[in-house]
Amino acid sequence: MEPIFNLKSLPERLRSLGKRVTVAVACPADSHTEEVVERSIREEIADFILVAVAGKEAVAKRLLADYPEHVVIIDAEDDDDAARKAVWEVHEGRAQVLMKGTINTDNLLRAVLNKERGILIKGSVLTHIAIAETPQIPHLLFFSDAAVIPYPTYEQFDAIVGYITDTFRSITGKAVPRVALTHCTEKVSEKFPLTLSYEQIKADAANKKYGEVEIAGPMDVKTACDAESGALKGISSPVVGNADILVMPDIEAGNTFYKTLTLFGGATIAGMLAGTTVPVVVTSRADSADSKFYSLAAACLKALR
Amino acid sequence: MEPIFNLKSLPERLRSLGKRVTVAVACPADSHTEEVVERSIREEIADFILVAVAGKEAVAKRLLADYPEHVVIIDAEDDDDAARKAVWEVHEGRAQVLMKGTINTDNLLRAVLNKERGILIKGSVLTHIAIAETPQIPHLLFFSDAAVIPYPTYEQFDAIVGYITDTFRSITGKAVPRVALTHCTEKVSEKFPLTLSYEQIKADAANKKYGEVEIAGPMDVKTACDAESGALKGISSPVVGNADILVMPDIEAGNTFYKTLTLFGGATIAGMLAGTTVPVVVTSRADSADSKFYSLAAACLKALR
Repeated sequence: MEPIFNLKSLPERLRSLGKRVTVAVACPADSHTEEVVERSIREEIADFILVAVAGKEAVAKRLLADYPEHVVIIDAEDDDDAARKAVWEVHEGRAQVLMKGTINTDNLLRAVLNKERGILIKGSVLTHIAIAETPQIPHLLFFSDAAVIPYPTYEQFDAIVGYITDTFRSITGKAVPRVALTHCTEKVSEKFPLTLSYEQIKADAANKKYGEVEIAGPMDVKTACDAESGALKGISSPVVGNADILVMPDIEAGNTFYKTLTLFGGATIAGMLAGTTVPVVVTSRADSADSKFYSLAAACLKALR
Repeated sequence: MEPIFNLKSLPERLRSLGKRVTVAVACPADSHTEEVVERSIREEIADFILVAVAGKEAVAKRLLADYPEHVVIIDAEDDDDAARKAVWEVHEGRAQVLMKGTINTDNLLRAVLNKERGILIKGSVLTHIAIAETPQIPHLLFFSDAAVIPYPTYEQFDAIVGYITDTFRSITGKAVPRVALTHCTEKVSEKFPLTLSYEQIKADAANKKYGEVEIAGPMDVKTACDAESGALKGISSPVVGNADILVMPDIEAGNTFYKTLTLFGGATIAGMLAGTTVPVVVTSRADSADSKFYSLAAACLKALR
């Protein structure tokens, strides 16, 4: 199959697989969630288990009335109960993606991380994967972590690289991702312990820990994404100027990259949590409608592969 | 006088002041430095003291031959000698701006930071100030620190805010900068000690430590620069969506912002070092010719006010 280079190819790819994912939604009570659910049903990419809180079932009921073959409703007492029940649907294998509706991310994550009834992979770390489509680059750009891990340790970088290369392959269908380990300079030094972690990650990659990858760094964002900058600096690597994946040095850089890409770069960004048994979609109010829909589509594609 | 909203207004403003700055250049031996010096002379914004290393004086001699009234040459034995001599011209008051030519930044900074013969303000910290002109925002966007201080302490944030508000007023002519203290979320917490520094900076600002400013945060880059994002989050402040200045939480975020703005946002960025007795221009090979020229123009304007 052709690799995927943009977000709008995701729904079509999902349909071509001939399987439908079931998504459990905690607290579907706002118009944004309603829009994403409805669009996903209409574009034939998912069915839904809507876990709705008593007194706030209007959206869920409307969706059930209009799409009775694609929607199931589960009643919940309050937000925390809804989070527990939505997570339980995943835990029991009845849903393959979890999605946040009108509930605080913290409340949802408490249920996700619960030791007995949660869905964190044992011994795993929770991390966020972002997928950017930009007018400047002719392929999707994956990056992590922009939202969960403040200042990754070596173990956390190791988890990030494992999840993001795996997710990249599942979603784009490209076998060998080009991974840039980003940092403000090209130097490895004790002053920046994260660069020492990067050295270890490169050694791990050479031992095929992450499967087939091209990996290089430290290098800055411009060197990773712009061939000319790399040439000027005299750095030669298949990754330079052609990165598919950017590993961000910390959450401040990751968040800044995310926000600057959307605001100044005209990018559309999808995102999901990884480290859980299934992808978790945690969009925020400030995300665009497209961004929310493509996040769900990307999560569904990841769930199917 | 009208405030300045873009980089191309800088040369005209300099000319309107009727004074010419003298710039000391360490190692003017490459075509980029030559171009910036020549353009600055032609646009009547500066005169030059060119400190050239023996055997590498071709560029300096050519400039002296063509612009004898605006160029002086000083001979140096090697790069370190050139750095010392260029810094000494500033130290003795014969130059009001220092500029890096074909010399490693580290070598130049060693001379700048020298205790007896250097030009660091006593008890001061060295920091970098960037000035971005973007197609998306109708005014200049100042930010710091993208290049020097890895993870600022409260004392370093205090210095950064002092220098950048001062530099902002000198260059734009606007009296009351709107300063956003940026971070990946809006929360103040022990988990991110930089947010505790921000609280102290806001208290200092309320006590007029930085003169007249509007200051707010923590907030992310999008909230700082996009009114709609702020509204969605229910955050109300004159800074939200209208920031003139972004204080970056660390060098990783600052560098990422810098590189992402230029590569994905089509921005032109000028920059200079602060914390020294005069502005220091330290452009790098990857900067565009415009970026280098405007860096010098901004430094000259800062030097005059």
